[in-house]
Amino acid sequence: MSYLSQITSPTLLLDEKICRNNLKKMALKAKFQGKKLVPHFKTSQSHEVGEWAKEYGITEITVSSIKMAEYFCGHGWENIHIAFPFNPLETKKLSELAKNQSLSVQLINEAVTEKLAKDLDYPVGFFIEIDAGYGRTGVEVSDFGLIEAILRKAKSTDKLRFKGFYLHPGHTYYTADKAKIYEESLAALNMLKNKYSTEYPKLVTRLGDTPGCSVMEDFGDVDEIGPGNFVFYDMMQVNLGSCKREDVAVALAVPVVDIKKERKEILIHGGGVHLAKDVLMEPDGSKNFGEVVILNENGWSIPFGRSYLKSISQEHGIIKASDELLAQVKVGDLLGILPVHSCMTADCMGGYLSLNGEKIDHAESI
Amino acid sequence: MSYLSQITSPTLLLDEKICRNNLKKMALKAKFQGKKLVPHFKTSQSHEVGEWAKEYGITEITVSSIKMAEYFCGHGWENIHIAFPFNPLETKKLSELAKNQSLSVQLINEAVTEKLAKDLDYPVGFFIEIDAGYGRTGVEVSDFGLIEAILRKAKSTDKLRFKGFYLHPGHTYYTADKAKIYEESLAALNMLKNKYSTEYPKLVTRLGDTPGCSVMEDFGDVDEIGPGNFVFYDMMQVNLGSCKREDVAVALAVPVVDIKKERKEILIHGGGVHLAKDVLMEPDGSKNFGEVVILNENGWSIPFGRSYLKSISQEHGIIKASDELLAQVKVGDLLGILPVHSCMTADCMGGYLSLNGEKIDHAESI
Repeated sequence: MSYLSQITSPTLLLDEKICRNNLKKMALKAKFQGKKLVPHFKTSQSHEVGEWAKEYGITEITVSSIKMAEYFCGHGWENIHIAFPFNPLETKKLSELAKNQSLSVQLINEAVTEKLAKDLDYPVGFFIEIDAGYGRTGVEVSDFGLIEAILRKAKSTDKLRFKGFYLHPGHTYYTADKAKIYEESLAALNMLKNKYSTEYPKLVTRLGDTPGCSVMEDFGDVDEIGPGNFVFYDMMQVNLGSCKREDVAVALAVPVVDIKKERKEILIHGGGVHLAKDVLMEPDGSKNFGEVVILNENGWSIPFGRSYLKSISQEHGIIKASDELLAQVKVGDLLGILPVHSCMTADCMGGYLSLNGEKIDHAESI
Repeated sequence: MSYLSQITSPTLLLDEKICRNNLKKMALKAKFQGKKLVPHFKTSQSHEVGEWAKEYGITEITVSSIKMAEYFCGHGWENIHIAFPFNPLETKKLSELAKNQSLSVQLINEAVTEKLAKDLDYPVGFFIEIDAGYGRTGVEVSDFGLIEAILRKAKSTDKLRFKGFYLHPGHTYYTADKAKIYEESLAALNMLKNKYSTEYPKLVTRLGDTPGCSVMEDFGDVDEIGPGNFVFYDMMQVNLGSCKREDVAVALAVPVVDIKKERKEILIHGGGVHLAKDVLMEPDGSKNFGEVVILNENGWSIPFGRSYLKSISQEHGIIKASDELLAQVKVGDLLGILPVHSCMTADCMGGYLSLNGEKIDHAESI
């Protein structure tokens, strides 16, 4: 019996074959260049995807909250890195988890370093997050005063172990010239490594973002890469040139509830609570909340003529449909939607259905 | 011990007093005009809020999916209306639920009417949804052919009971002249009522949207009103003029993890997975993902100088902070964020904390 016969409401499909291929390609690319791949698991948030990743030599992962770290604790990871400026209100929780799991956090100010130095009962690693132009978080690359203040506070305890410098060049999402961003990011990390490696000979540098890691062929002298979204990819990454539509590993299966042929519109049950509201702009200025694929017993296929979600509300989605799609679809059918931002869609849905009709776990489903 | 001492990570606060006041005001307004208030519970999705609503004379509710209807079944509601063009794949589920709970659905085409007529085992009410200019869903107001085709199919069974016409004038969200939209919507519903009330003497008309129901003082001849968001309100409604900031009943409590005084920025743990990504535009063209309030032991207060979330990603939020806020906040503090779209934030968070420190249920938390 096909997985399709199980679906009566919006359901997030995960194609294991595509997902494994994405993992394998990135793992091989990292290996070829002698870099350690530490993927960011905020995208899948799934033990099962974690088991697949282990098959490609991945031994450490990154997460974005202590809640997510807790979910992955005790599942055989050599280290779990929480890539978020540490929230000092969660110090007790961190200390509890660190008793039985190797963990690392990100530090960007003295206040939190001091709090951890004072209150941790078990050792935790830390990266100093560096901002080399993205402007979201991190210590500015030239702010040696702050870097050294953090290192000094950390030295006051044996519970904080400096691992190195972490840089998320998120501006690759907004800038065409990703090579230039990588050049600057790598230069920043190299400079810091040279400056501090006498005192900390084991320090490593880590750089991670899917657009950059997907298109760059040379990661220079960085030690580790940490992209996240590549495991599923999505329409935003297709638009950025990180991947092809065929590489997107998840699709939201949605029921067709009405068709307005004269307007070339198809109404689906599938909206913001399922897909999230990330949006792309079409060349004509209209919005695109996800792209239609045709579901079949083996997964999905990409139609010749494009159809996409032109608007969504909490539960409604309206597809701007191609003539090809209008000719074949009827009320009660299921369609697939390749999401604009798969991390957010997976978080909204809190679980997956495999193409074998089996449930796949997500941290939000526990 | 204050509720604040329980919070270490992003937590959605619900102020019962404000929420009850919103319910009470709308209930009195409806009563004064002799209209039945059937609120849309996709906003709170909460049994506890439902119990509060009952105290103001509310006996029926609306939901937006069968999953949400299932959550509310058996909790003493005289009827639960599923205000979404019915998804025929869920016919079996609907029939099961209808065994023990009075339910109604929305119909807008023949295909689904036929499916229900054929497969329902227990009676279900239905509204025909009318589109009088919003353009999202519904039968066009002048499409009597389609209205009559639906009524004809429904007559072929005793399991489908026609309740009347439902109209969601969602374009009040985008149009300054809400009075004009109401005039047109009421005229459409009156025309339909006059046309079909000979054959269906008990038919009712229902109109519902928060901006309109909040600002209009005269609902004309409509029988029932069905707003949803008013129970919590949010910054979008403040911007639309539906309410004041003081009427917003929910705030996301978020930990401060870093402060960049020179840039006037505060970094919080609180992003798209907590607030959703609905956005308002500031007059200067910058984005606003939620507005800062100051938390205290009794709830929150609105600061004199405005501070707001200027950007968010999956877990990060960056506040553009007033000097007043910068002068008082430190790393490790909690701030409150009034959401742009409270229905979506509540759905993301899947639960509330009361100002007494008690958990309040949400459909997503089961």
